[in-house]
Amino acid sequence: MSIAISAAFDSGNIEVVRIAGPGAIDLSIRKDAHSDFYQWFHFRLTGAAGQACTLRIVNCKGSAYEGGWPNYRAVVSEDRQNWTRVATSYDDGVLSIRVTPRTNSMYVAYFAPYSMERHHDLIARIGQCSGVSTSVLGVSLDGQSIDCVTLGEGPRHVWLYGRQHPGESMAEWWMEGALERLTDPADPQARALRQAATFHLVPNMNPDGSRRGHLRTNAAGVNLNREWHAPTAEKSPEVLCVLAAMNETGVDFAMDVHGDESLPHNFIAGFEGIPSSTDRQLGLLGDYKTILSRLSPDFQTRIGYPVAAAGRANLTMSTNAVAERFGCVAMTLEMPFKDADDLPDPRAGWSPERCKALGRDCLAALLEIVGRLR
Amino acid sequence: MSIAISAAFDSGNIEVVRIAGPGAIDLSIRKDAHSDFYQWFHFRLTGAAGQACTLRIVNCKGSAYEGGWPNYRAVVSEDRQNWTRVATSYDDGVLSIRVTPRTNSMYVAYFAPYSMERHHDLIARIGQCSGVSTSVLGVSLDGQSIDCVTLGEGPRHVWLYGRQHPGESMAEWWMEGALERLTDPADPQARALRQAATFHLVPNMNPDGSRRGHLRTNAAGVNLNREWHAPTAEKSPEVLCVLAAMNETGVDFAMDVHGDESLPHNFIAGFEGIPSSTDRQLGLLGDYKTILSRLSPDFQTRIGYPVAAAGRANLTMSTNAVAERFGCVAMTLEMPFKDADDLPDPRAGWSPERCKALGRDCLAALLEIVGRLR
Amino acid sequence: MSIAISAAFDSGNIEVVRIAGPGAIDLSIRKDAHSDFYQWFHFRLTGAAGQACTLRIVNCKGSAYEGGWPNYRAVVSEDRQNWTRVATSYDDGVLSIRVTPRTNSMYVAYFAPYSMERHHDLIARIGQCSGVSTSVLGVSLDGQSIDCVTLGEGPRHVWLYGRQHPGESMAEWWMEGALERLTDPADPQARALRQAATFHLVPNMNPDGSRRGHLRTNAAGVNLNREWHAPTAEKSPEVLCVLAAMNETGVDFAMDVHGDESLPHNFIAGFEGIPSSTDRQLGLLGDYKTILSRLSPDFQTRIGYPVAAAGRANLTMSTNAVAERFGCVAMTLEMPFKDADDLPDPRAGWSPERCKALGRDCLAALLEIVGRLR
Amino acid sequence: MSIAISAAFDSGNIEVVRIAGPGAIDLSIRKDAHSDFYQWFHFRLTGAAGQACTLRIVNCKGSAYEGGWPNYRAVVSEDRQNWTRVATSYDDGVLSIRVTPRTNSMYVAYFAPYSMERHHDLIARIGQCSGVSTSVLGVSLDGQSIDCVTLGEGPRHVWLYGRQHPGESMAEWWMEGALERLTDPADPQARALRQAATFHLVPNMNPDGSRRGHLRTNAAGVNLNREWHAPTAEKSPEVLCVLAAMNETGVDFAMDVHGDESLPHNFIAGFEGIPSSTDRQLGLLGDYKTILSRLSPDFQTRIGYPVAAAGRANLTMSTNAVAERFGCVAMTLEMPFKDADDLPDPRAGWSPERCKALGRDCLAALLEIVGRLR
Repeated sequence: MSIAISAAFDSGNIEVVRIAGPGAIDLSIRKDAHSDFYQWFHFRLTGAAGQACTLRIVNCKGSAYEGGWPNYRAVVSEDRQNWTRVATSYDDGVLSIRVTPRTNSMYVAYFAPYSMERHHDLIARIGQCSGVSTSVLGVSLDGQSIDCVTLGEGPRHVWLYGRQHPGESMAEWWMEGALERLTDPADPQARALRQAATFHLVPNMNPDGSRRGHLRTNAAGVNLNREWHAPTAEKSPEVLCVLAAMNETGVDFAMDVHGDESLPHNFIAGFEGIPSSTDRQLGLLGDYKTILSRLSPDFQTRIGYPVAAAGRANLTMSTNAVAERFGCVAMTLEMPFKDADDLPDPRAGWSPERCKALGRDCLAALLEIVGRLR
Repeated sequence: MSIAISAAFDSGNIEVVRIAGPGAIDLSIRKDAHSDFYQWFHFRLTGAAGQACTLRIVNCKGSAYEGGWPNYRAVVSEDRQNWTRVATSYDDGVLSIRVTPRTNSMYVAYFAPYSMERHHDLIARIGQCSGVSTSVLGVSLDGQSIDCVTLGEGPRHVWLYGRQHPGESMAEWWMEGALERLTDPADPQARALRQAATFHLVPNMNPDGSRRGHLRTNAAGVNLNREWHAPTAEKSPEVLCVLAAMNETGVDFAMDVHGDESLPHNFIAGFEGIPSSTDRQLGLLGDYKTILSRLSPDFQTRIGYPVAAAGRANLTMSTNAVAERFGCVAMTLEMPFKDADDLPDPRAGWSPERCKALGRDCLAALLEIVGRLR
Repeated sequence: MSIAISAAFDSGNIEVVRIAGPGAIDLSIRKDAHSDFYQWFHFRLTGAAGQACTLRIVNCKGSAYEGGWPNYRAVVSEDRQNWTRVATSYDDGVLSIRVTPRTNSMYVAYFAPYSMERHHDLIARIGQCSGVSTSVLGVSLDGQSIDCVTLGEGPRHVWLYGRQHPGESMAEWWMEGALERLTDPADPQARALRQAATFHLVPNMNPDGSRRGHLRTNAAGVNLNREWHAPTAEKSPEVLCVLAAMNETGVDFAMDVHGDESLPHNFIAGFEGIPSSTDRQLGLLGDYKTILSRLSPDFQTRIGYPVAAAGRANLTMSTNAVAERFGCVAMTLEMPFKDADDLPDPRAGWSPERCKALGRDCLAALLEIVGRLR
Repeated sequence: MSIAISAAFDSGNIEVVRIAGPGAIDLSIRKDAHSDFYQWFHFRLTGAAGQACTLRIVNCKGSAYEGGWPNYRAVVSEDRQNWTRVATSYDDGVLSIRVTPRTNSMYVAYFAPYSMERHHDLIARIGQCSGVSTSVLGVSLDGQSIDCVTLGEGPRHVWLYGRQHPGESMAEWWMEGALERLTDPADPQARALRQAATFHLVPNMNPDGSRRGHLRTNAAGVNLNREWHAPTAEKSPEVLCVLAAMNETGVDFAMDVHGDESLPHNFIAGFEGIPSSTDRQLGLLGDYKTILSRLSPDFQTRIGYPVAAAGRANLTMSTNAVAERFGCVAMTLEMPFKDADDLPDPRAGWSPERCKALGRDCLAALLEIVGRLR
């Protein structure tokens, strides 16, 4: 059997340049449709059991975040359940992944994938829990549902949404952790939160990009997180329908969950530069970050994005748009593709299980401020 | 929230004619691409919690097997794990499904679906078992892998393959049952079989049709089970690659696993009309059917397809082609979309779990003849 | 931490002679209370991680079945779930077990134990299944319940009971396999059997001996399988209550499940020597054995116990007593402590999983004769 | 089948006064051996499917904590996995439990039991985790092992131990939650704790009382938590061996996990009255309580035991003895038998799952002070 590469499955993305033996498997990452963005890869290597393989991704120079490649290590799985990091190096636009598969089938990805089938299973499983209702807020350009999970009985409205950028699959692992905690009938934090607030979770705002194996855009090549000032049915129905639902409930707390290609840290970006920011909003944001950094050794506040100057916020982004529109506290959570260097894990790096743990801890932190949200 | 229908997921297939309230949801089944075949449906009904819904599929008259609709009941699931039958009636070309969903998300299908993600999970899980190797025999027109699982150390070669017709998802449930038995290290029948033969299983010969929600054809609209006389890379690469692999090993026993839309029974169709049939071949076929009917109350030999007269076999079909080419015993296993009326189950009808049980029993029956295969 | 031996838990049984380092751990098996029988051992070795240990059981010469020790290998487990065989030799009354534990806690046993807590969990789990009822037939000398599981709707009465000899824990693993099959709603053999017969299963007839770590007797030192002619409330209430329940239902088929210390085979002993045996009874017995040997490669009919001559049956034993009293087919199933040499497994020997598989296959065999039982 | 009561199993404890029909089942709680303490009950009610039963425990007046009975509700389980509260009232020394079992086998207990078999399974499972070692610190009067789990690489020594009072089974559920968190390789709090400290957990200090169904004492009728000033091999070897092991490592943080019969709250009792208490010790104690009450809505600091005056501490109790001997922070965690009224759960009351959650949260709280322990 000869070595082969396949990406014809959910969130698969790669193109073969040439395969000249296990030591010379040259690949390139395909661009998002109707877009120049590319960085996400996910493929299957078959027929290479016991062979020392070098997988070279040769077009990294033009990728969306070249800064994401240095010190990055790819993840692999043979059982599709456990993902581990493998030897990876970056040099002059070429990412070289070295791995010796044990069996004839190994999956290789930029980060542990979260398929749409798993998404549907998650919605179905959580939807059976007591006190939970699900709804479809709208339809993507490819006709997929934008699923929302609603639970809790409290007067405040908390919106948690993720995966506007579909290649940031860590966002949906985070959602799985958050949903499991919120629906655990014995979890005291979840029980108290459900008394204090009503939760609206949109685990995947970009199912088309997710299924297509995109990094940043939807089926039309649109970056959804630049559409919140004026979403349209033609280009960004995914944002349009979520914003419409937010308008119905109002928003007291919003978190938009993302991944960052370059920084090896978990951090939060706020809405500091919006025109109407209040001390109350900013105080809650600061308190939340402080509490979370105290609770979770995987989270920190030293390193992050530069803060926009007063009045200079980009209002096309959801965090700014939501904070401005609803006068609430809103934030973007960024998790690393690499590792959280504050508590590094050489084997797994940043991982699905750690995403889920952070999802749980973000809820514990929320409990400490939820009473002050309204 | 309003009632909506979605089919934009793995193996989804339906079109909305109109939705005029829960009691008037009119749908039509989309044809297989490049083909006039249609019968498979799989969709999600959302926003209908607690409402008595009538789903009417209005274009059944022109479907591939109109005889499949009388006495048929659709399956539904809200948790995507347990599928149950619901009240269904057929009249003058319209299939009416009546159901009151408990939650806002219910899946409705022709038979319990088996997604490509589940397929990949199956291959990955089984591939980790001791003594198992996996291989990719070829690539479908949509670029998907044709996966093969090989195990056992015996001199005889047993080929088990299914889902040439992608809408017959019961075939892959059967495969899951067979693979789980074959890889059970404590199962005596499996252990004896692995000593007697080498097994080659192709759980899904038509991944493109499966993912696209087709009934009978691949991405080119080709019925793979009419291509075995002369498969081509252009129209039927899925058959071409499996036949090539069979040529390498030879075949002592072959079973092609299918579903039948009309007959409420499990049965086996043979290769009686092939030009070169021998008494030895036919004797093994008869013995196998007798043994299986004795072992499994879900299997019978009274009802089935008419037997082809001598020399009149359709050699485009795999069972005939393989029996003729390899001088072996070959057969087509047909499972019902409805129920097995010999031991009916009002709640589940014919079900994934029963498919898996039949897969295990087919192996037990094989053990009783495997020594005579060569 | 020093090496230590403990047996103060459910079914634990050993005494320390002396511990003079890992290479010299001398042990002796404690006799059943009020009895001279002994052979069962079950203990925990602690504090020996990474050390090559030799465990010597020095009093094997006087054990119940000295023939059980040659070619026998002890089982060990560190996770209490997976039991594997280890190097064991027998010489001049001393059984030497050589093992290097990976961790500081390893369990060593004559066969994989089945605790009373697991028994209670089994009864509770099975008791939740649809169509199942449980009852307490009576009380042991130590005050424990004699649990019975009843299921099925058919006119014939099938009694399956085990562990009269408590050290033969394989009997309860067999029961677990049989109960899981009988309560599987998708299993065709189980469904047909439940239509044909009513099943009464007593998974453990000797809970006192089980908990005390006995080989063959109850709390009074009585061998229950020598009490069926005249059980008493004082010495054998366990038999008395089961026999009373049998009298209420009648018996069409009875199987008493045991383990044999010496013979490395699964086999069935019948009731040939009872005064009133009929051709019908003997025919069913013979057919059952033939069917089971055809179905299961783990079962055979060549090797077994000598058959009693006409009229010479020991009517104190349940199989003979039940066949005589009820005019039914009755049998004793014997499973090995060693391995089933017809299909040996060097790693596990005869194992819990294989017991369970045989339990399932014994039911499949029963299906082929159940219609003729009455 | 008639109604019966059994307690002949692990931690079973009840005596039948009389059974005069389902509405008149009179019971009494047996005293701990060699002791006058009694309050723990655990028994099985059989033969009562569908019958409205009244179980009257008639000797509550002389029990150890009569204040435990008002507003208390008993727990029941038919599957031995899920325990729910049932209607219970207390009047004039009689506790009346009203329940209609669905099946013929229902377990009734003072709190969800934690059997010694489950204990051994816990030790075995945790003992397989990476970086964990287990040891046997000593042997109980009945010959059972006192198991200790050790993990972590940090310089500080944390001792967590429970179930000195065997009827306080919530302590071992708490231990299960703590051990699962500490061994979770993706949990950031656990990873940071393991870097900061070495953990020693003794999940069950009183296996004899546990197995015998005692409330407060060991096999000799001795209250182990009154032996820490001078434990002896004759009366309290369980304390003697734990204290010896503490002496070897030193102690920086100690938590003794208990249940309280009367107060419907989780709370912590400290060591305020010991002769040598320091501000540092007391500051850490206060901080820990504050942090835990902030983290967990199930924990509070308003209600608890009276604090001993300076120099008036009872030095026979472990918390005081350990704080005094090692100059460390030590505390007794008390969980309710009833409910935690700060966040009550009408269905489950205080439950195993909530014990486990509190175990996890106690570790999260520890992380916030661990750096200051030494």
